[in-house]
Amino acid sequence: MVTLQVLKACFTRTQTKMQHPVYTLLIDCPDQKGLVHQITGVLYRQGVNVTGNQEFVEHEYNRFFMRTTFQGGINEEEILKKIRKVLPVGAQARLSAVRKKRLVVLVTKEQHCLAELLVRNQFGEFNAEIAAVIGNHDTLERFTHQFGVNYHHVPHENKTRECHEAEILEVVQRYRPDFLVLAKYMRILSPAFVAHFPNQIVNIHHSFLPAFIGANPYRQAYERGVKIIGATAHFVNNDLDEGPIIVQNVIPVDHTYSVSDMMQSGRDVEKIVLARALKLVLEEKVAVSGNKTIVFD
Amino acid sequence: MVTLQVLKACFTRTQTKMQHPVYTLLIDCPDQKGLVHQITGVLYRQGVNVTGNQEFVEHEYNRFFMRTTFQGGINEEEILKKIRKVLPVGAQARLSAVRKKRLVVLVTKEQHCLAELLVRNQFGEFNAEIAAVIGNHDTLERFTHQFGVNYHHVPHENKTRECHEAEILEVVQRYRPDFLVLAKYMRILSPAFVAHFPNQIVNIHHSFLPAFIGANPYRQAYERGVKIIGATAHFVNNDLDEGPIIVQNVIPVDHTYSVSDMMQSGRDVEKIVLARALKLVLEEKVAVSGNKTIVFD
Amino acid sequence: MVTLQVLKACFTRTQTKMQHPVYTLLIDCPDQKGLVHQITGVLYRQGVNVTGNQEFVEHEYNRFFMRTTFQGGINEEEILKKIRKVLPVGAQARLSAVRKKRLVVLVTKEQHCLAELLVRNQFGEFNAEIAAVIGNHDTLERFTHQFGVNYHHVPHENKTRECHEAEILEVVQRYRPDFLVLAKYMRILSPAFVAHFPNQIVNIHHSFLPAFIGANPYRQAYERGVKIIGATAHFVNNDLDEGPIIVQNVIPVDHTYSVSDMMQSGRDVEKIVLARALKLVLEEKVAVSGNKTIVFD
Amino acid sequence: MVTLQVLKACFTRTQTKMQHPVYTLLIDCPDQKGLVHQITGVLYRQGVNVTGNQEFVEHEYNRFFMRTTFQGGINEEEILKKIRKVLPVGAQARLSAVRKKRLVVLVTKEQHCLAELLVRNQFGEFNAEIAAVIGNHDTLERFTHQFGVNYHHVPHENKTRECHEAEILEVVQRYRPDFLVLAKYMRILSPAFVAHFPNQIVNIHHSFLPAFIGANPYRQAYERGVKIIGATAHFVNNDLDEGPIIVQNVIPVDHTYSVSDMMQSGRDVEKIVLARALKLVLEEKVAVSGNKTIVFD
Repeated sequence: MVTLQVLKACFTRTQTKMQHPVYTLLIDCPDQKGLVHQITGVLYRQGVNVTGNQEFVEHEYNRFFMRTTFQGGINEEEILKKIRKVLPVGAQARLSAVRKKRLVVLVTKEQHCLAELLVRNQFGEFNAEIAAVIGNHDTLERFTHQFGVNYHHVPHENKTRECHEAEILEVVQRYRPDFLVLAKYMRILSPAFVAHFPNQIVNIHHSFLPAFIGANPYRQAYERGVKIIGATAHFVNNDLDEGPIIVQNVIPVDHTYSVSDMMQSGRDVEKIVLARALKLVLEEKVAVSGNKTIVFD
Repeated sequence: MVTLQVLKACFTRTQTKMQHPVYTLLIDCPDQKGLVHQITGVLYRQGVNVTGNQEFVEHEYNRFFMRTTFQGGINEEEILKKIRKVLPVGAQARLSAVRKKRLVVLVTKEQHCLAELLVRNQFGEFNAEIAAVIGNHDTLERFTHQFGVNYHHVPHENKTRECHEAEILEVVQRYRPDFLVLAKYMRILSPAFVAHFPNQIVNIHHSFLPAFIGANPYRQAYERGVKIIGATAHFVNNDLDEGPIIVQNVIPVDHTYSVSDMMQSGRDVEKIVLARALKLVLEEKVAVSGNKTIVFD
Repeated sequence: MVTLQVLKACFTRTQTKMQHPVYTLLIDCPDQKGLVHQITGVLYRQGVNVTGNQEFVEHEYNRFFMRTTFQGGINEEEILKKIRKVLPVGAQARLSAVRKKRLVVLVTKEQHCLAELLVRNQFGEFNAEIAAVIGNHDTLERFTHQFGVNYHHVPHENKTRECHEAEILEVVQRYRPDFLVLAKYMRILSPAFVAHFPNQIVNIHHSFLPAFIGANPYRQAYERGVKIIGATAHFVNNDLDEGPIIVQNVIPVDHTYSVSDMMQSGRDVEKIVLARALKLVLEEKVAVSGNKTIVFD
Repeated sequence: MVTLQVLKACFTRTQTKMQHPVYTLLIDCPDQKGLVHQITGVLYRQGVNVTGNQEFVEHEYNRFFMRTTFQGGINEEEILKKIRKVLPVGAQARLSAVRKKRLVVLVTKEQHCLAELLVRNQFGEFNAEIAAVIGNHDTLERFTHQFGVNYHHVPHENKTRECHEAEILEVVQRYRPDFLVLAKYMRILSPAFVAHFPNQIVNIHHSFLPAFIGANPYRQAYERGVKIIGATAHFVNNDLDEGPIIVQNVIPVDHTYSVSDMMQSGRDVEKIVLARALKLVLEEKVAVSGNKTIVFD
């Protein structure tokens, strides 16, 4: 069965007047001969202008992935129906007009990742709008307000996890975000919560996964005497720190680094890795295949 | 006008018995609508098995690049003729069966890059055969012989550059190599010599170009007090250290590094960068566009 | 002759009550036998607690550098006099109590480096206070005010360089800063201006110096087809982009990067490199030797 | 109690005629006031020429580490006795004249690390001599002989581990090496074997430890979908892949990498990391503190 999904565009009047919208087509299906020829044929006959095209075949699973960007005045439902006809059973096709995505950011007390997102948001550095920030502490409330962004303090004290998550969920849903960003949100989300947002939650973990899963990775790294530390941005699924990895990066350390030095240096990596992962996700460049990502970069 | 070029395969009997050859198709032409659809259509109708496909449009010059790998029993001339028909005027198409390339390596006195190539050659780590090594000194003759490879000592003393290059050219041509590798060959080749091997000479330069062009880059780096040094593998064209860059890499240094420390650390980068560039070139993953490379990696 | 310089500490009452101040001693002199023994002897006899000690001998110039940190209740003038006695002619010794440094930041229109500094300033991430921001445009005025920091708009239009710099100098001197930070300030400062702040101006240059000196380094990098781009933080002296380098870092790029992609990726490197350099400078870890730095890290 | 250890120098006649030997002094003791002053005082009064001096205090364990290099004509026993007098109880002091170290290398079937060592050995690129190579297969016998180095084939088939290790030990001891190098030796050594060579066995592990401990790390990395892979050189102690880490390095990978691509790219990192670690160890720049290393680089 072919799953189709059309994401509505929200262009300003000016943009649509000036030029046709830009679309991203993401396809994920069993590999077979002639797929590229037939998919590009549908687009060619529609007269759209293909601006980029990337394919990848995961030979181990015989799975075909394709990302195409094109520009043109089209009927989205119709073009998807035609693409569906040339794809094999089990295919997923997703067509979306390029638009500003909506984000809700979850934080605890550390500011560096949130600051990175708020600054980029304010200067339009990625194609998104931060609709709100939710924190289980109020530490970052004033800072968030400096950027004119809503802050919701949802404390977890004296609540069951279910109860706390229900409150967060209620706030999140008010904003109908495309993605949730865990910007150093230091509480574990339950599978029930996560299930509401499949491949829509991006987390930054402060270690080079799968090394140092869990709590206090910098302390773990210090104890082990590693010479490199890192950070990992990944989608969140049911298991702790186990979702598909989007971006990783590292920096060298040495014996002179205390745990606190590692934390401080690590912050620079964390925020850059999170920002980079988010940019890829917002530009629809990341496909998920099992517990891995295909990054069309 | 479309330029066609068929590189003859040289498969062993066993290989051709067992399976169809693998081909690489490289296309470089003005961009226009429908190219991917039409090129993949030719391959689809021939019934070959496309194993990889990469495209790139250089928007600044409106130029389309494509690299396709496929497997099948084909008539090479015929398939190229059909591809030519769907390409615009000014296109270049190059079809070659995957095969072991022949290399001639030029050296002076330093062994680290040569050693890297000889070891990889001996253990079949890249798809090439080092047919011979030529040196303007005899320093590396015994070392080359340890690996059972021919060494030609062509001294440059008391000769004009023309005369010396004519002697080298004579030796090179005896081996009919696909590529020349300058593995720390410390003499500048004349435009006349270089013109015999367009995009077929790969050089390793011991700096992060375009910083420190010319002689003694490590001394220059030391004097300038840089905190990072690097190496650059590039195709050689008429101008000194000015050809299309294929691979670059760097390593950190600090104030404790003497010129000699930089040279020693730099060697590790140089040999890895050269080996990596050569691997890409041997796998036909590098297209040249003006003074730049498109690396389909 | 020995140059002595005592930088006054400005500890809060609470700190001085609780514990002795921490000092940094930086020495730069011709090398001779026994220096470490004699310098540490002075400190030992004063009964201070040495917490760190680093030495470096630049053999090419026979020059000895030492950085010592210690804690104790001392008479600063007296201890410096005693250290002076054991140092050779031509020595420079600088003793300073660890304290918050004052910064004035110069900007033009780009926000990423300024944002990095303002966020770190607000959360006390480095030991400094941004006293004011000066811009030759008003683009970043509102943004600076969000952080509660003074902004001075000093436009350069219709003014001679001398006149414009005199106005900037007047504003700067009002704040009596320890360091000036050029956070993407896009105008060249005259030698006359620079002479007021020897080794006190830190600039971020948006290339891996000495590659791409001058204007539009990303355009230059694009045209050259490099595979790595970088950023350089350095002290400013008389010559354009020629001062002692403090920190450099790089990121890989490829043929798919437009000039604008390079600029965007480059910004992440620029701000991290500037923040790192500033941290080292603020912690008195950087000694200058001719056109190079000794970084005691 | 102070442990003293004098390693005998083996200078050629020419060297000792020309100049005094160079010594490395490594000290590891509880921290206390005045250590640097007193240790350098001993050296100063002996009239030797100190060429380098590095200290590190591990505050978490209140432990002082110092590495000093000096040149001079000294009585080694006498100078060590004097240094011992100024050190606290529990100190370790190790004085050794700089000399060529002897290595025995253990391998299985992969050549890249061995090749790196043999080439450096032949061209004198590190201050060591490879006395012999021991393999549990004969795969690399011919290759080792190309470099004129002894190869011992000690097969493990149909033997208990004790028996096999006893045979290896017998061969190793014949050569009286300073260090054993496990250059992709794919069998686990027993604690009993390891106990013969405390901090004298250097291993290269083909992952960025502590990620992917144990077998098939590249397969593990592939399954986890990491975006960076690495290699770790470490001393071997009782526990599998758990010894003090000396050097680590990494390279980026992406979804297009098969397990075999990762292995191939990983090899470049492995050999460079091993060579770098070995260079540090041979130059006596590595002190061991519990399960960590202090690298005086």
